Amino acid sequence: MKEKIKAGIIGGSGFTGIELIKILDGHKYVEIAFAASRTYKNLKVSKIFPSYKDKGNKKLSFIEKPTAEDLGKIDVMFLCLPPLESMEFLKNISGRNKFRIIDLGSDFRLKNPEDYKYWYGTEHILKNRLSGFVYGLTEVNKKKIKESSYIANPGCYPVSVLLGLAPILKNNVKIEDIYIDSKSGVSGAGRKLNKEYLFSNIDNNFYAYSTTGHRHTGEIEQEIENMAKKKIKVSFTPHLMPMERGIFTSIYCRMGKLTEEDAAGGKIFKIFENFYKEMPFVSFTGNKIPKLKDVLGTNMCMIGISQDIRTHTLKIFSVIDNLLKGAAGQAVQNMNIMLGFDEEEGLKFNGMF
Amino acid sequence: MKEKIKAGIIGGSGFTGIELIKILDGHKYVEIAFAASRTYKNLKVSKIFPSYKDKGNKKLSFIEKPTAEDLGKIDVMFLCLPPLESMEFLKNISGRNKFRIIDLGSDFRLKNPEDYKYWYGTEHILKNRLSGFVYGLTEVNKKKIKESSYIANPGCYPVSVLLGLAPILKNNVKIEDIYIDSKSGVSGAGRKLNKEYLFSNIDNNFYAYSTTGHRHTGEIEQEIENMAKKKIKVSFTPHLMPMERGIFTSIYCRMGKLTEEDAAGGKIFKIFENFYKEMPFVSFTGNKIPKLKDVLGTNMCMIGISQDIRTHTLKIFSVIDNLLKGAAGQAVQNMNIMLGFDEEEGLKFNGMF
Amino acid sequence: MKEKIKAGIIGGSGFTGIELIKILDGHKYVEIAFAASRTYKNLKVSKIFPSYKDKGNKKLSFIEKPTAEDLGKIDVMFLCLPPLESMEFLKNISGRNKFRIIDLGSDFRLKNPEDYKYWYGTEHILKNRLSGFVYGLTEVNKKKIKESSYIANPGCYPVSVLLGLAPILKNNVKIEDIYIDSKSGVSGAGRKLNKEYLFSNIDNNFYAYSTTGHRHTGEIEQEIENMAKKKIKVSFTPHLMPMERGIFTSIYCRMGKLTEEDAAGGKIFKIFENFYKEMPFVSFTGNKIPKLKDVLGTNMCMIGISQDIRTHTLKIFSVIDNLLKGAAGQAVQNMNIMLGFDEEEGLKFNGMF
Amino acid sequence: MKEKIKAGIIGGSGFTGIELIKILDGHKYVEIAFAASRTYKNLKVSKIFPSYKDKGNKKLSFIEKPTAEDLGKIDVMFLCLPPLESMEFLKNISGRNKFRIIDLGSDFRLKNPEDYKYWYGTEHILKNRLSGFVYGLTEVNKKKIKESSYIANPGCYPVSVLLGLAPILKNNVKIEDIYIDSKSGVSGAGRKLNKEYLFSNIDNNFYAYSTTGHRHTGEIEQEIENMAKKKIKVSFTPHLMPMERGIFTSIYCRMGKLTEEDAAGGKIFKIFENFYKEMPFVSFTGNKIPKLKDVLGTNMCMIGISQDIRTHTLKIFSVIDNLLKGAAGQAVQNMNIMLGFDEEEGLKFNGMF
Repeated sequence: MKEKIKAGIIGGSGFTGIELIKILDGHKYVEIAFAASRTYKNLKVSKIFPSYKDKGNKKLSFIEKPTAEDLGKIDVMFLCLPPLESMEFLKNISGRNKFRIIDLGSDFRLKNPEDYKYWYGTEHILKNRLSGFVYGLTEVNKKKIKESSYIANPGCYPVSVLLGLAPILKNNVKIEDIYIDSKSGVSGAGRKLNKEYLFSNIDNNFYAYSTTGHRHTGEIEQEIENMAKKKIKVSFTPHLMPMERGIFTSIYCRMGKLTEEDAAGGKIFKIFENFYKEMPFVSFTGNKIPKLKDVLGTNMCMIGISQDIRTHTLKIFSVIDNLLKGAAGQAVQNMNIMLGFDEEEGLKFNGMF
Repeated sequence: MKEKIKAGIIGGSGFTGIELIKILDGHKYVEIAFAASRTYKNLKVSKIFPSYKDKGNKKLSFIEKPTAEDLGKIDVMFLCLPPLESMEFLKNISGRNKFRIIDLGSDFRLKNPEDYKYWYGTEHILKNRLSGFVYGLTEVNKKKIKESSYIANPGCYPVSVLLGLAPILKNNVKIEDIYIDSKSGVSGAGRKLNKEYLFSNIDNNFYAYSTTGHRHTGEIEQEIENMAKKKIKVSFTPHLMPMERGIFTSIYCRMGKLTEEDAAGGKIFKIFENFYKEMPFVSFTGNKIPKLKDVLGTNMCMIGISQDIRTHTLKIFSVIDNLLKGAAGQAVQNMNIMLGFDEEEGLKFNGMF
Repeated sequence: MKEKIKAGIIGGSGFTGIELIKILDGHKYVEIAFAASRTYKNLKVSKIFPSYKDKGNKKLSFIEKPTAEDLGKIDVMFLCLPPLESMEFLKNISGRNKFRIIDLGSDFRLKNPEDYKYWYGTEHILKNRLSGFVYGLTEVNKKKIKESSYIANPGCYPVSVLLGLAPILKNNVKIEDIYIDSKSGVSGAGRKLNKEYLFSNIDNNFYAYSTTGHRHTGEIEQEIENMAKKKIKVSFTPHLMPMERGIFTSIYCRMGKLTEEDAAGGKIFKIFENFYKEMPFVSFTGNKIPKLKDVLGTNMCMIGISQDIRTHTLKIFSVIDNLLKGAAGQAVQNMNIMLGFDEEEGLKFNGMF
Repeated sequence: MKEKIKAGIIGGSGFTGIELIKILDGHKYVEIAFAASRTYKNLKVSKIFPSYKDKGNKKLSFIEKPTAEDLGKIDVMFLCLPPLESMEFLKNISGRNKFRIIDLGSDFRLKNPEDYKYWYGTEHILKNRLSGFVYGLTEVNKKKIKESSYIANPGCYPVSVLLGLAPILKNNVKIEDIYIDSKSGVSGAGRKLNKEYLFSNIDNNFYAYSTTGHRHTGEIEQEIENMAKKKIKVSFTPHLMPMERGIFTSIYCRMGKLTEEDAAGGKIFKIFENFYKEMPFVSFTGNKIPKLKDVLGTNMCMIGISQDIRTHTLKIFSVIDNLLKGAAGQAVQNMNIMLGFDEEEGLKFNGMF
């Protein structure tokens, strides 16, 4: 490969944006054409994120926003914007752009504009483009991603939930009810200056939030329907942990019947094993439940299961780094697939711990 | 009141024991006759726990074990021993003791010896005394506790679970399924020297354990049956948080039907409110979900609920300090009731945060 | 004692104010007449601080500010206000008030208006009242406190530093140089909404600040001069720890000469022992260096020393809970002495850990 | 370059060993021939460290110890062993080995056997090989490292201290006294199963240790002498922080005289700037004091200074990741220089935060 692909980043100064910059910086076939941030325009990235190490002589600085010329040069654009802003941004740039788009925000995940309105409380302003975006849950939609030009990267909670459920839903295992209890580090909420996220409110604390309906529920139910070919409503409850990064999701599925044989590693066990055996970024750990620390700083999702035959409950536990497999890491994984690179390129880093 | 009640403590050097010593030390009507600890015999309590402040001139030291004479002098004995050791201890001291007993261990909680064998994997060695111990969930069994001489203090997880469920079970609200997801600080595991509890294994980590059947499940189901007058099996899953203290329990109940009216604060809301309105140590916070930090360092249990009418799920969230309301605090609360003191005596301290 | 002393609190909703409310609430001889807070006026204290447990039927609510009638009823006023606001407040209320004042802020600590201007960058507006306030470092100024009506409660860092140095300064031990390295939890900075105090900026982090001259240096040097009867300039450097509470101070003193005899527990050792042997809230631990956790949640200061004869350095380590011995606890200790109560009344609580 | 260099690792299962494995795994010109660990022999590395991601089809497993044949094949050996064990190991393998050695342990750092005996309390058993090992403080000894075959990699504290002092010592700036206050995360103590390192003893805690003479003092004074060409004794005090990784070192130097001009960025400022301007892994941040988090997960050392003209104190603050620049990262940096690779190869990773 002679020339590197050129990438533009919009909203580069949030937690997700900086992770994306760090990953792309280490990617063999990509160079960052620009990173835009209103807040930090004209400042060097390494000034805002001192742990970011500029490579070589080229110092990366944030621009305020890309010009038409900037946009003309890039091959792929990553959007790291808050709800409502991705569609606003795309509406404002002229339609004749040739670059591919990976949206890490939430605007193009829900395909039904009614669902969008229900969960986000407002009308979608680019309804006709919704169907053009493939839901970027890599391990499930790899084929579609390969053929697409526009990706709606999944929310962090849905990644942990849907990867946990995919093997049984795609294999028609019958589930009667699904209860999901997710726990997230505080970086999931972004870098907002909010009294709630002060150190003294988070340290030595733990709590549930959005208990009557978190927005990610819509995304989870849409994809469950796509996988199971039927509607299943799920009870989803997010919690905040006194940690910076990571999501630990516990999924409780009421099954018709679970036997001792199942528990000892029968059918369900094999379904998971087969489903993920060729996937470089999902590791099924059997009945050894993964720990959150095992994936922090990596693009891995680890999944373990328990089968409680007393109550006929299948318990699925999944862990991810919310900023990597739950956001920037999976975005690059999707880009790799879309552009024909090795799926693991740029993502082979080990965890910190 | 002329003379103070005399209390003996067996197993005083664990997390629970030291909390008990600290509480009794500030109790108007109690004095500590002895605190026994094999590990720290003959050492001053303030040497082992520097944050413990000896009162006046009397310096409290641990003894190895009480003599018959020691036992003859006390009015109440607190047992803070690991599984199997409380019954061993009681078997070894002669039966003719006049003191009351509050067992903070797990040996006398399950009333059916078969259940004991199932959950603890061994025969109970004092089966005939099981029925003599009242299950010390104060808010539910207050009347029985008042009339008893022997209390089996509940496990920490069961306290958080059963106080959350009691109002609806005692009021015959129909529940179809119960999924319990509990999160505990690491002090719940005691002061064991175990690689798993090293700082580097807990910090920045989170995980589930005993996922196919934690022992506390037996206790939870026994008391659910006592309250609901029918057997209900529950799926219970404990998790470990990177914190020292506290339990946050999320309970998901599948209800036949929940209406908008329910969600807005209908019947169920009032049931909780009424159930706890006279209880000094349980606070129902309505649909404002309590945070764990609100109860750390106190004897309070705080409970909030959410009603998700999309999935007909009643969500109950309850928080306690595992060492206080989940252990030593409730033990003293039970003692107060048993001995006719003010229920709040010695327990009026505020939280640290 | 028939009637309780009445206390008023101004600025009750900061970290210090709420600690003060909690302590006074458990004080035998004091009742809170009012707690004023502009931010939370008319809100119940237990609503803002859920871990605060209202006593009995009386629910304490914040008022906006006290009326003249309110002021007429109190016996003692606690000021918990930011720099410049205590003097502003006292200037605005008429001078004919009979109550005593304990100022937990910084306005009346420095006695020389020039020093005040140097360290706070502005003119003092009540210069004539400066000398009326006794510097409330209890263990050093107990006699003066007993006879005074106005107390300037010391800053949190100075408490940890000055209690560490007092024994040798008051005993004329010759010191050539003093280097002070203090580490504080984040509550020392108050409850400000500042990007710097977000969880993600503090967790897993550690740093120095105000490295060329923290305001507390002025207070430290003033009191060193009062104790040593000569001027000694000190190098003082504060650091921020990823914790909510507590101060750990390391003091390095260059001594003319230290011998093996000194190190083994000679003269200096005895000086410390004697100085603090009658003090209920300072504990000298010899050459066993105290740990911060030992004092969290208590009004204790613990001090340990090391004597490095290789470099003739006396190392003094002192730990306090910055909100208790470093603020609200010592304020109540001073009130007890000023009003003739038992010095320990209301302050006998044990640590949380 | 046709063939990759082959590296052997002895003691691969400690914190340092696993970091080394992760770095070498991403190194273009190195492959790991074996990693030896008595504790985990025959177990896969990814089983012990789940965050380690095996590359390609080759799964790395720990061997118990290398055979003569294993030793015959390697080009470089990394020793990650506790005190006394490196020299024991080297004594036991035959002398005719052609590979280079980088010892991350402490056995070959002190050049004078008397110093070794003083600080380690025992005779050195390979005295004649001491002078053959170059002290691997890369930025100071780069030239010697290039020409050597044996490297004694510095201790973690000394790295942070000596890089902070090197610019002024090598430029003959006159210093009268040096006081060093270092704070380390708990991984510095290794993975020992010790009650002291339990989560409940470290969390919410902070303390000093080895206050009368930490072993690293010997190493620090030896290298100060090498740089300053004269003996200077330093007072060094290590502290433990409630964190897993990182070292924050505060150095206080008493200077003859500091002027306003100095403080504003005069001579000393320029000395630091010049000294490190060509060094890829040390960043001088002027009078902006670096935060620990800025370097966690990187091989960087960041250094900031403050000049307090009131007390004529030069304050130097330096931060490193103790397991990277303080151990495994610098070891690979030294290997790169010794073997003629690009100094940054394998070390360009960004921080986690």
